[in-house]
Formats: sequence, structure tokens, C-alpha cells
Amino acid sequence: MLYIIGLGLGDERDITLKGLEAVSNCHKVYMEAYTSLLSFGLSTDGLSNLEKLYGKTITLADREMVEEKADDILSDSLDADVAFLVVGDPFGATTHTDLVVRAKKMGIEVKIVHNASVMNAIGICGLQLYRYGETVSIPFFTETWRPDSFYEKIQKNQMMGLHTLCLLDIRVKEPSLESLCRGRKLYEPPRYMTINTAIEQLLEIGQAREYPVYTEDTECVGFARLGSEDQMIVAGAMRQLRMIDFGAPLHCLVIIGKTHPLEEEMLDFYRCRD
Amino acid sequence: MLYIIGLGLGDERDITLKGLEAVSNCHKVYMEAYTSLLSFGLSTDGLSNLEKLYGKTITLADREMVEEKADDILSDSLDADVAFLVVGDPFGATTHTDLVVRAKKMGIEVKIVHNASVMNAIGICGLQLYRYGETVSIPFFTETWRPDSFYEKIQKNQMMGLHTLCLLDIRVKEPSLESLCRGRKLYEPPRYMTINTAIEQLLEIGQAREYPVYTEDTECVGFARLGSEDQMIVAGAMRQLRMIDFGAPLHCLVIIGKTHPLEEEMLDFYRCRD
Repeated sequence: MLYIIGLGLGDERDITLKGLEAVSNCHKVYMEAYTSLLSFGLSTDGLSNLEKLYGKTITLADREMVEEKADDILSDSLDADVAFLVVGDPFGATTHTDLVVRAKKMGIEVKIVHNASVMNAIGICGLQLYRYGETVSIPFFTETWRPDSFYEKIQKNQMMGLHTLCLLDIRVKEPSLESLCRGRKLYEPPRYMTINTAIEQLLEIGQAREYPVYTEDTECVGFARLGSEDQMIVAGAMRQLRMIDFGAPLHCLVIIGKTHPLEEEMLDFYRCRD
Repeated sequence: MLYIIGLGLGDERDITLKGLEAVSNCHKVYMEAYTSLLSFGLSTDGLSNLEKLYGKTITLADREMVEEKADDILSDSLDADVAFLVVGDPFGATTHTDLVVRAKKMGIEVKIVHNASVMNAIGICGLQLYRYGETVSIPFFTETWRPDSFYEKIQKNQMMGLHTLCLLDIRVKEPSLESLCRGRKLYEPPRYMTINTAIEQLLEIGQAREYPVYTEDTECVGFARLGSEDQMIVAGAMRQLRMIDFGAPLHCLVIIGKTHPLEEEMLDFYRCRD
């Protein structure tokens, strides 16, 4: 049996009782390290907290392992109970559909333990979840690669008065250029896009349009470390949020569509004054 | 302090460790009874399970109480720790923004404990959450009231190739007609829309259009009791799902947009064969 267990967004105590029970009964415990390093395992302390609470040794499964070495995880699951821990919900912003499909094809029973994900926890700012349009991803621009496919999606959402959740790029375990040239495994340091960078990239793409659907006066909500004790949530115009230091990752951004009075009332608690 | 604590979707063991700790430390514990009666409190047993696990007496706050008598909950929170338990996430499909706004205006500190909601748990069927458009609600039709505003929203989502989550009507503690006439408090028995009724209403509205954006051949996914041990998830055409008995509530329905191959692979595990 393969248990895929959502850990929620904050710390080790965001696991559900059901999740904790499953972990305790599992023979082997993996944790995806792609986004989880931040909240749970950036320091050895973070991981120890988890291991102490769960009473289990946890094997960190980095991006490579999940994508390329999933066979190990799956073969373990064939004749024993294995837990695969993921930050947020197993099918939230980062999805694990591929692992589930492979497991099911091998005849392994899969059990999902749900938890909060960024996709629903953003509801805390007061914007109704059912008033969101398609979610967009903002990738890091490079000198030569400045993809702008998010613009059209935001445009469609804005035209319908819907809010847009922007997920910001995470670069973990990217092979370095040197590594690619020499055939050695060397990685760039991890990079997490800030709200500031996201807004600058958004504005660059918007300003290239004759009638942009958003400008630096467009109202947004910035979220940092959503769901953790020191989360930071600020509502304001792009030009305001661009200047704010939101601190440590992860960040995400919501571009506000048409609002109802109750949404406005709630946003007011988060609005920056300047 | 007012804690608003998400209970998740299944049973009493879907609470997080953080949520359980908060409940244990609270002076008074309320639970919203609007949607929660189903999973947690339909029987006295359900409620007892919660009370036993949490070690607290729970006051059921029905729709009337939450909307009209929130003052009691709030005044309790002024000088003691109060927990307000909600099914799913505090800001999921059923929102509690109003309660939070009122609390904050009274200077009460509010803490949110997130959990899974239907809005992210539907990810289990394999359709990517970021490929959903605006969520729609399907209300019970009556002889004289057949609102079809959901149609246009589905149309827009379909035109963009996006999936549509349809939340199905729940009628709990509706005053009976007799009650309204006589000024006595009498309620209709609770009603929860089934997937079958939802599809019939959807098709009725679609068939009135010259070029409907969906027909009985449109692929959908039906979810019953999502997140609980006996959840039922079936993918198929509307005409197929219309004939299936999904059993006890709650039900919801997803109208599938344009899919990627990995989404299709995952859907295959849920497809009905007939």
C-alpha cells in the first residue's frame, strides 16, 4: 500500500491524526523535497522535528528521485506499507498524479490523506475561492527566455471579473551550466521567486501591451509563508507590493478581480497604508 | 481569541494536530451544523465521536445561530478562547468570512487552522486544479424558479478548455411554507442535491440552447462523500452518470474541459464501463 499524505502548509503539527496514524504504521517513509525543504526540512532541525514527532526515519526524495527513481518507492510499496509525504495536499499546487498512475498500473493500492493546500488556504484573505479563474504560473525570466503565456490567462480572468492566483517559480536542484558541460552533478543554489520579482515581470509584460489588463495600480494580495505561524498577507496596488519585503519564501500573489462588499471588508484588514 | 478550525472532509480523525491542540485549550467549542451534520453529526454517534476525541462538549451552531446569533459566539471570544469548528477548510466552499470580519471589528484576535476542502480534494480525480475555471453552484429548481446563471459560467470555462466544479445545493433548516404562514418555527427536512438531479437540471438548461456547450455526451466526474472512507468517484458521460446511484450525500460534479494525457490516464481509473 502506498499512502500519499498531505502535511499541510505550516509545520509538522499540521498533519492530520489520520495522516500521523498512517505514517506510524508504515514500514518506510519518504518525503518529497521539492517544495517541502522550506517549511519542514531546510535545516536538519526541521527534519528532526518531523522524525521525532512521527517516530520514523524519513528519506528525503528530491526531484530527481521522485521523477527518475520512483521505481524504488513503488517496489517498496508492493509488499509493505510505504508513506510518501508531501507539503500541502497531495493534489494541490504541486501534483503527484504521475506517481499515483504508476502505482495503480503496478496494482499497488493507493490511499490519499488530504490536507490544506495553497489553492484553498488563500481563501484567508477574504476573496471567495469560487470567484477565481484559471491559476497561472510565473516562471523566472532569463536574458533570452521571457515567456508571457500567463498574460492571456490573466486577461481572460480579468475580463470575467475573476481573481487570479499566480504561483511563483521554484528552482531547486537545477543542474548548473558547468555541470551540464562537464557531465558532473552540480546544482545551482535553490531560487524562490519573490512577490517583488513576480510583479516586475508581470508589469514588464503588461507594459508591452497597448491596453494592458493590469497596471501598477491594479490591486493584488501578496502571501508569504501562507499557513505558517509567521505568514504575511498584504493587499495593495502592484506598485505598493513591489516595494514590500515579504521575507523568506514561499511567496504567491493574487490579482484581484471584481469584488463583493464582504470581500472588500475582509481585504481591508490586510491593506497596506502608505 | 477565536479559533476557526477546519475539520477536513472525512471524520473526526481528519483534524490536524494543531487543530486538536487548539480545541483542547478552548473554553467553549462551537461547530457549524450547516454542512457538517453529514459527516460529523447526523447521528448522535457522530457528535459523540467528536466530543470523545476532543474531550470537549460541542455546541452545534446551526445556520440561524451562525448568521443571526454570532454575537454569542463573539462575545464569548472577547475574554476567553473559543473554537468554531467547520467542515473542510474555514475558507473553502462554505465560507465564514462574515464571522471573521465581525470578530476583527470587535478587536477579537482570530486564528485560522486550515484543512482540506472540497476545492482542493477534487484533485484526486487527476484533473489539475490550476486548470479549473470559475466554480458554479447548482440550486434546486422549483416549479417557478429555474435560475440558469451557471450556464454562462460553464460556457466560458468550456470555451477556454477549463474544468468546472459544480457545487450542488444543500437545503438545511429551510422554513416550511406552513411555518412562514403561521409564524411558527417549522423546518423542511434537509435536502442535498444528488449528481443525478444536478445533471438533469444541467441538461434541461443546455437543451434550451441552440448550440449547447455541453450535452449528455459531455464527460464529467461525479464525487460522493469526497474525502471519507467510502467516497465514490466515477468519470463518464452525463448520460452515464445520470443513471448511477452515488448513495448518501454530499455530492459534487466536475464538468471536464480540455485534458492532458496524464489527466486522461488518471481519469481512466475512475471511468465507468457500460
